[in-house]
Amino acid sequence: MQEILKKIVEGTPGAKAAILMGFDGIAVDQWVAEEAADTDIESMAMEFSFRFIELRKAAQSLDMGDVSDIAVKAEHGVFLVRCLGEDYFVATLLGASGHFGKGRWMLRSSAGALASEL
Amino acid sequence: MQEILKKIVEGTPGAKAAILMGFDGIAVDQWVAEEAADTDIESMAMEFSFRFIELRKAAQSLDMGDVSDIAVKAEHGVFLVRCLGEDYFVATLLGASGHFGKGRWMLRSSAGALASEL
Repeated sequence: MQEILKKIVEGTPGAKAAILMGFDGIAVDQWVAEEAADTDIESMAMEFSFRFIELRKAAQSLDMGDVSDIAVKAEHGVFLVRCLGEDYFVATLLGASGHFGKGRWMLRSSAGALASEL
Repeated sequence: MQEILKKIVEGTPGAKAAILMGFDGIAVDQWVAEEAADTDIESMAMEFSFRFIELRKAAQSLDMGDVSDIAVKAEHGVFLVRCLGEDYFVATLLGASGHFGKGRWMLRSSAGALASEL
């Protein structure tokens, strides 16, 4: 599982870390790039996870159906999320100049393999 | 201002509506495509606005700085947001097959003109 998270980080220019986490804020596994070793992806994902639950509820109440992807771009970084069913998500943190499109694609293309290990 | 919102919708393949709203949930102006006349973009944006405030707070507490863009992709649509400073945001709703990249670009390129009218 860590191999897949590592592949996401190494395959995405500007990616600092990737994590697989439950929507309850409990991490399953993570990978942090060597050059971004001080990145606390677990705290970040945990902090966001509760907000993402609220977004999912909002989308459902608005008849948008299940949320599959969330992206939050801020001054110093981009947090990309791919939902894996009801209970888990995989996320990657990019630096401000990270490659959004590649990150999103890496998450999507890894989702099946990650979900099959859950 | 409605002209700019109309341009966002017409310039984005699959866009149904665009809205300029305060983070307090009060709409400033909106535009709904004729072929999507039943789209209640105001209720959607209002429902999301409170969640977006929470996301911004989370990003700030994580030293990510100010949030500039948020994207939520669900089964039946994509909600794209561009923040206009502290108090307002512009958003567009795309159908499930809408053009994400073009929508994001239209929001960004319109942000300056919209902000100058606030």
